[in-house]
Amino acid sequence: MLRITVWNENLHEKESPEVAALHPNGLHETVAAALRTEEDFVVRTATLDQPECGLSEEVLAETDVLFWWGHMGHDRVPDEVVDRVQDHVLRGMGLVVLHSGHFSKIFRRLCGTPCSLGWHDDARERVFTVNPAHPIAQGIPAHFEIPNEECYCEPFAIPEPDELVFLAWFSTGEVFRAGCCFHRGYGRIFYFQPGHETAQSFGVPAVQQIYRNAARWAAPVKQVPEIDCPWIAPLEQG
Amino acid sequence: MLRITVWNENLHEKESPEVAALHPNGLHETVAAALRTEEDFVVRTATLDQPECGLSEEVLAETDVLFWWGHMGHDRVPDEVVDRVQDHVLRGMGLVVLHSGHFSKIFRRLCGTPCSLGWHDDARERVFTVNPAHPIAQGIPAHFEIPNEECYCEPFAIPEPDELVFLAWFSTGEVFRAGCCFHRGYGRIFYFQPGHETAQSFGVPAVQQIYRNAARWAAPVKQVPEIDCPWIAPLEQG
Amino acid sequence: MLRITVWNENLHEKESPEVAALHPNGLHETVAAALRTEEDFVVRTATLDQPECGLSEEVLAETDVLFWWGHMGHDRVPDEVVDRVQDHVLRGMGLVVLHSGHFSKIFRRLCGTPCSLGWHDDARERVFTVNPAHPIAQGIPAHFEIPNEECYCEPFAIPEPDELVFLAWFSTGEVFRAGCCFHRGYGRIFYFQPGHETAQSFGVPAVQQIYRNAARWAAPVKQVPEIDCPWIAPLEQG
Amino acid sequence: MLRITVWNENLHEKESPEVAALHPNGLHETVAAALRTEEDFVVRTATLDQPECGLSEEVLAETDVLFWWGHMGHDRVPDEVVDRVQDHVLRGMGLVVLHSGHFSKIFRRLCGTPCSLGWHDDARERVFTVNPAHPIAQGIPAHFEIPNEECYCEPFAIPEPDELVFLAWFSTGEVFRAGCCFHRGYGRIFYFQPGHETAQSFGVPAVQQIYRNAARWAAPVKQVPEIDCPWIAPLEQG
Repeated sequence: MLRITVWNENLHEKESPEVAALHPNGLHETVAAALRTEEDFVVRTATLDQPECGLSEEVLAETDVLFWWGHMGHDRVPDEVVDRVQDHVLRGMGLVVLHSGHFSKIFRRLCGTPCSLGWHDDARERVFTVNPAHPIAQGIPAHFEIPNEECYCEPFAIPEPDELVFLAWFSTGEVFRAGCCFHRGYGRIFYFQPGHETAQSFGVPAVQQIYRNAARWAAPVKQVPEIDCPWIAPLEQG
Repeated sequence: MLRITVWNENLHEKESPEVAALHPNGLHETVAAALRTEEDFVVRTATLDQPECGLSEEVLAETDVLFWWGHMGHDRVPDEVVDRVQDHVLRGMGLVVLHSGHFSKIFRRLCGTPCSLGWHDDARERVFTVNPAHPIAQGIPAHFEIPNEECYCEPFAIPEPDELVFLAWFSTGEVFRAGCCFHRGYGRIFYFQPGHETAQSFGVPAVQQIYRNAARWAAPVKQVPEIDCPWIAPLEQG
Repeated sequence: MLRITVWNENLHEKESPEVAALHPNGLHETVAAALRTEEDFVVRTATLDQPECGLSEEVLAETDVLFWWGHMGHDRVPDEVVDRVQDHVLRGMGLVVLHSGHFSKIFRRLCGTPCSLGWHDDARERVFTVNPAHPIAQGIPAHFEIPNEECYCEPFAIPEPDELVFLAWFSTGEVFRAGCCFHRGYGRIFYFQPGHETAQSFGVPAVQQIYRNAARWAAPVKQVPEIDCPWIAPLEQG
Repeated sequence: MLRITVWNENLHEKESPEVAALHPNGLHETVAAALRTEEDFVVRTATLDQPECGLSEEVLAETDVLFWWGHMGHDRVPDEVVDRVQDHVLRGMGLVVLHSGHFSKIFRRLCGTPCSLGWHDDARERVFTVNPAHPIAQGIPAHFEIPNEECYCEPFAIPEPDELVFLAWFSTGEVFRAGCCFHRGYGRIFYFQPGHETAQSFGVPAVQQIYRNAARWAAPVKQVPEIDCPWIAPLEQG
C-alpha cells in the first residue's frame, strides 16, 4: 500500500471560470484521479485553505509520497509548513513537484537554488525519454505529445539533477529538462514540467502513467532512520 | 587577481587559551596566511563581531571567493546575512566551507539537507586523493597525513557531490568524504573537512595547497549573468 | 522470479588447498548459497572451463542478473564472450562485479578506464554506508566489519560512479570506494569490493545481504527495448 | 601553449563534390582554422590515410587535446590506433568528439555503450546553454541558431554525462543532449553534436567559440601521473 497526498493551492480554480471548468473538483482531484487507478494506492488531497495548509504532522506522518501543485500562492505557505515538509522529505517521504511548483518554497529550499526558468504560453510539447531504463520511464514511449502546454525554457536554475529522465521540445523553439530526479537525505524528489492549469497534459495517458511511476519510485525505501549528528565511539583496537 | 575574503566566527579564540595560542590573530588569519603566498591573491578577513558580520553588500561585491569557518556561533549569523551570501554564490561567488562549517546556515541552505555527520575527537587522519585529475588535487600526493584531527564520520547528510575529490581515513576506524564539490547557480562550492580549531591541519603543506587550489577552482568563470525568470519570446517561424 | 547466474573462473580453487577448503564447491557456489535464501531467486552457476565459459547466448538470455568473480584468468575469457555479456548488459541484464573482478575484461570495457587500484593483503575492513537510502543499503547497518580482507586502495581508476553506496576503511591505513553503481544502456552494474578468495567476507551477514540487495536492484526494469540507431521520421507540422 | 591535433577521416571530401566545395582543404582544416585564431594554440591536423592514421605515438605524445571527426570510415581505424588514443586520454590528453564521431571506436570504447541515437537530415537547430557557468559555455549566449544541421535525436545511448552543457532543439521536432562532458582516467572528453559535413555549423561564431572553449577545458590539468595497480605499503602504525 502506498499512501499519497496530493497538495494543491486551489486558487486558480476559484478565480478563473476556465480553470474551474477544467478541474471541477480542483486540480488536486484531477491529479488524484490519475493515481487512484492503482489498487494499492491510497490517495488523499490537501489544500492551502485548510488548517496548517492541510499538511499537519499527522497527515505527513501518514504520507509516503506528497504531490505538490502551486503557483500564485507560493508565498502563502507558512515557513513552518515548509519546515515540516522538508523534515519529512529528509526522513524519507517522496516528493513529486508539478509544473509551476518549481518556484514553491519547498522545492527551492531542497534545491538551494532559485529554480528560475524562461517561459511563455501556448506551445505544442513533445516529451522525450532520455533515460528509458529509469523506473519512472517504464511503459512510456520514446516520445509523446501534449497538444497544448505552457512553454518552459532553459536555463533552469537547478542543481545538476541526480538523474535526468525526460526532456521537453516545444513547437515555439525551446527545450527544457522536463523530468528530473534529486535525492535529499532519505527522500526522493521528482520534478515534472507538464501541468499548467489550463493545459491538456492532465488527460494525456503518458503523463498519468508518469505520475504513477513517480509515486512508486519516490516511495520510501525503508523505515525511517535517524538523521542527526551522533557521537561515534572510536573503533576498538582489537 | 583573485579577491578572497576569509570569514571566521572568531569565538573559540576568545574563550579558549589553547585556541588563542594556536591562532594568535584568529583562525581567519591562519587561513589567510596560507593564501597570501600567492602573488595574485588579494586576501582580506571578516568576522562575526563586525557590523553585518563583516559581510556587507560592498564586501561581497568585491569578493571572488569566500572562505567560511564557523562552529559554536552558527545561529548568531542573521538570516539576512545568509540570504546575501547565498545570493552572491548563486551569482557566481565561490564558497569554500571548512570543517565545522558543514553545519553553517549557508552550507545547509545551499545543500538543502541537514549536513549532519558522526564525530569524535583525537584521531590521526590520512587524506586520499580519489580524483587526481581534479583542479583542486593539482600537486597533492596520492595521500598525505594529518597527525591530529577531529574525526568526522559517514553518513554525511549531503546531496551526492557533483565531484568527489578527497576521502579521509581516521586511525580510530572511520571514513569521510573529506573534499566535495557542488555547483549552485553560477557558484562553485567546495567543502573540506580538515580544520578543527585545535588540530594540526593548518600547518600541513598539502592542506594549505588545497586551500589555494580550491580558491582558484571556485573563482567565478565569467561576469555575472542575470538569474531571473524571463519571459521568452517564441521563436519566429522562418 | 529473479534468474541469477553466478560466474566464477574457478581457478584458485584448483591450485590452492586453502581456497579449496574454504570453497569446497567453488567460490561460485559460496556466493550462490547466499542468494538461494530468497524464495523468488533462481540461481545457477557458470565457470570458465565450460564451453563458451558457461555463458552461451541461451544462458544469458535466461539471466536477469549476472554475478562475476575472476582474478588470475581474466585473459582467458575470449573477447566474443565479453562481447556477448556486454551486449546483454546494454540490453538490460544486471551485472554484479565482485572484488578482483575490477580487472575483468567486461568491467573495464563497460567503464572505459583501466580500473586499476592499489592493494596489499591482510587488513581488517570496516564498510560504511554512505547512501543509507539506496536500495542496495536496505537493512545494512551504518557500518559493519570484516575481520580479514585484502586491502584495496584509492585512487581507483573508474569513472565517477553514478551512485556511491559504500566506502571501506582498512586497519592498515587505506580507504576505498567499496560499493559503486553504474548505468550502461539499459543495464545496471554494481561493483562490490569485498570477496578475496581467502577472506572472511563471504560469511558476513551484511555482505550476503548486499549480494541479495544488489541482485534485486540490478534486475532489468522492463522488457528489452531496441538499442540501435533508427532513422526518425520528422515531426509532422500540424 | 596548447597543442591541438585535429583528426579527420577525410573521406566525404574525396567522394562528394559538395563536401569538397564546402571544405576545400578538408573538414579538418575547417575546424583547425577556427582554433588557429588563438595565439596560444598550436594546431596540426591528421587524417586516416596517413601512416598510423596520422596518430603515431610521437604525435599523441605532443598533443594536449585531440579533436575527432569521423563517419563512414570508423571501421577503418585499426584497433591498435584506438588503443593508443585511449591510453593517451586515460593519461590526460583531452578529446573533443564532433558530430558523427559519436559512433567512432574511440568514443564508444570510452563510454562503454553503443552511443546510438536517432537521426534524419535537414533541420533548423537551436542550441541552448543549460549550464551557463561551465567553462565551455563562456561567452556563449543562452541560445543560438544553426540554420541547417542534421537532426540527432534522443535517446542517445551514452552513460549519464558527468556534466551536461548544451541541449539542442530541432525544428522537425526533436531534442538532443548536444554538449556532454565525461571524465575517464586523467582525461576529459567533450562530445559536441553540431558538425555534419554539409551543415552550416562550422561558420557559426558560437560553434567556433565552443571549439576553443572545449580545447581549453579539455587540456590536461597536470603532468601525467602513473595509472597502474601499485602495491601499497601498509601504513606504519605510529
